Amino acid sequence: MARSLDDLPLRAALVDIAREFHARGWMAGTAGNLSAREDDHHFWITASAKPKGRLEETDFILVRVNDGEVVERVRPDNKPSAETSIHRVLYALFPEARACLHGHIVEAVVAADRAKQGAKGLRLPAIEMIKGFDIWQQNPKIDLPLFGNHLDVARIAGDIEKRFRKTPPAVTALMVRDHGPTVWGAGLQEACNRFETLEYLLRYQARAR
Amino acid sequence: MARSLDDLPLRAALVDIAREFHARGWMAGTAGNLSAREDDHHFWITASAKPKGRLEETDFILVRVNDGEVVERVRPDNKPSAETSIHRVLYALFPEARACLHGHIVEAVVAADRAKQGAKGLRLPAIEMIKGFDIWQQNPKIDLPLFGNHLDVARIAGDIEKRFRKTPPAVTALMVRDHGPTVWGAGLQEACNRFETLEYLLRYQARAR
Amino acid sequence: MARSLDDLPLRAALVDIAREFHARGWMAGTAGNLSAREDDHHFWITASAKPKGRLEETDFILVRVNDGEVVERVRPDNKPSAETSIHRVLYALFPEARACLHGHIVEAVVAADRAKQGAKGLRLPAIEMIKGFDIWQQNPKIDLPLFGNHLDVARIAGDIEKRFRKTPPAVTALMVRDHGPTVWGAGLQEACNRFETLEYLLRYQARAR
Amino acid sequence: MARSLDDLPLRAALVDIAREFHARGWMAGTAGNLSAREDDHHFWITASAKPKGRLEETDFILVRVNDGEVVERVRPDNKPSAETSIHRVLYALFPEARACLHGHIVEAVVAADRAKQGAKGLRLPAIEMIKGFDIWQQNPKIDLPLFGNHLDVARIAGDIEKRFRKTPPAVTALMVRDHGPTVWGAGLQEACNRFETLEYLLRYQARAR
Repeated sequence: MARSLDDLPLRAALVDIAREFHARGWMAGTAGNLSAREDDHHFWITASAKPKGRLEETDFILVRVNDGEVVERVRPDNKPSAETSIHRVLYALFPEARACLHGHIVEAVVAADRAKQGAKGLRLPAIEMIKGFDIWQQNPKIDLPLFGNHLDVARIAGDIEKRFRKTPPAVTALMVRDHGPTVWGAGLQEACNRFETLEYLLRYQARAR
Repeated sequence: MARSLDDLPLRAALVDIAREFHARGWMAGTAGNLSAREDDHHFWITASAKPKGRLEETDFILVRVNDGEVVERVRPDNKPSAETSIHRVLYALFPEARACLHGHIVEAVVAADRAKQGAKGLRLPAIEMIKGFDIWQQNPKIDLPLFGNHLDVARIAGDIEKRFRKTPPAVTALMVRDHGPTVWGAGLQEACNRFETLEYLLRYQARAR
Repeated sequence: MARSLDDLPLRAALVDIAREFHARGWMAGTAGNLSAREDDHHFWITASAKPKGRLEETDFILVRVNDGEVVERVRPDNKPSAETSIHRVLYALFPEARACLHGHIVEAVVAADRAKQGAKGLRLPAIEMIKGFDIWQQNPKIDLPLFGNHLDVARIAGDIEKRFRKTPPAVTALMVRDHGPTVWGAGLQEACNRFETLEYLLRYQARAR
Repeated sequence: MARSLDDLPLRAALVDIAREFHARGWMAGTAGNLSAREDDHHFWITASAKPKGRLEETDFILVRVNDGEVVERVRPDNKPSAETSIHRVLYALFPEARACLHGHIVEAVVAADRAKQGAKGLRLPAIEMIKGFDIWQQNPKIDLPLFGNHLDVARIAGDIEKRFRKTPPAVTALMVRDHGPTVWGAGLQEACNRFETLEYLLRYQARAR
């Protein structure tokens, strides 16, 4: 096992994460998508409809940040997922983001159901685990940005871009209601640690009375 | 690990699924049964009373779709399970079905308990994960077909046949109350992905308020 | 992997079960004990205070059924657990029992909490999974025998013996309140399958509304 | 696999525990820290910010009990975690403690939420599993020491020291609210067994009605 996910080749690290997240129930069937920045202008992302428990290093496409063009397909039949647009927006907005992980988590959806219809944020619980997002406050009042789900994923991506351009998020994460969280980080290991941190926070929230 | 379950020999793939589902608690003890179509007229199915966490490629029988005749037993003492009749009905009704997976899931039973006595369907939650069944609608109103459980399994199979002949299901899945889901697909990987998808949807439903 | 637990040497099979049950959270720390009949008059049982996630074939003692005498210790410092007396009673009462498994399961304790104080049985849910106990009825009304927990384990063993001598149990299992289930079977695989079956039934009961 | 965690080199044992606890969701991301006493005056403890699912034997520092001085860093960039102060207090107070394990457990936080604001203890459930703390009473009334969480970890350590100097705890464990449990033992295996025991007790408490 590599010391850190950042010591692995990008796609090998993403395969590791996919198999682990699938085993934990966070990427059921083909759900979710994972990406990592290859260079300032491109990122590798899982191709559409790949079973996440059996992901391989060939199941990726290389996408250009500025226009979403697919510049490489490891296998010729790899297709981009609609959700690629969300990853693209995040890489464009946050140059420091090197990896971006999106899964589907039952308890995250349950926790988000507690927020009012149309709410722009979900107040995260002020428990110790929030330090996983580098928040060092005694009684942190931190909101996880919440977005509505739309069949047209480009609309979600647009909402994210518009809101974050105006109001940068307090955490490197967002939640799409009825759907799931997306977490990014300055490296693969940081993104993965924070994904686990957010899952813990939302699992607590879903169970707390 | 094979790229896809469809790259494995049929029974090897079913063994993989059985051990995975057992580990997840979806095939406790000997519960559930898994099948895959060998050709248009026959399917392999797990023999009765095999512990699913220790399934082997010898634990199968080959059954004829049109009359349920056992045409091959990998081991001479392999016996057909009563639930073979449900698989047979599904292969007969849906020529495109190549694999059929039936497990017992606590949270699926809990979710189905919320439907009224005698209800013919359980409205699935309109969350993102429903796309795993190739449903692309903004606010999908999709019912999972619900059937009553009977000691006489042939009666369940008959109910399924009668209902589906008249009203094809909106998803390639059904739920027998107090019992568990059955999911089929155009291949082993698709059936497995959709089984995981349904488990997620029903787990959400069991936990949502 | 062996085809069936019954194809393994007795203690190797018990070690397999212990590691699996520990991983599932049913034998936290050193909790629980597992036994298998060596012959009509003796059974192997886990020695006291062994961590179940690291059990080995040397962590057993051989006990005589009729008087509880320890006739062999694989390691000289292996000590009998107080709960050996419960296993002894069950082997004495049921000559067909070849294996006996006792774990501690949070959801079993939660389910049993629903029974009235002093109740002698917990009505098992009439769901399909009950067939794992070879109960083939349309609406089974089966009670899992319930016993009160006592610091003095010999008293629990005595209660079991007295009650079962008069009223044999409807299932090859019992539950000690605030403690956990004990399940036996005509072989190691059957005992293990039924333990998983009971866990499923009680997990359902703990979650059902 | 070693017979007991105490048969392994100290740091190898801690690595084993970290990977296991991470897999169980008790050390999400980099959360928690684990230590073992090297000799009467020093203990090895996980360095700050290491992902616990990928911990290695180089991810440790050696700390002096009496003043908290870091006397060895396996890697030069290993930094002490703020929570080292809590481990230090426990080793200073309890010379028999050889290992000390701290994790973050959703259900422990949920269980502690049931205690009144400012409560100094959480009454543990009087169920069989409490024997894992060597408590042999028919109706034990045992309180798990509860402490408030503070951004300034030294303050938590100070509270623990002050309270325990006056009132030694009834169990070798404590809980910091909104945070997680810390468990110690006379050896690595005992500490690990008791951590699992406490997790079970608090999971029960979080689910019981």
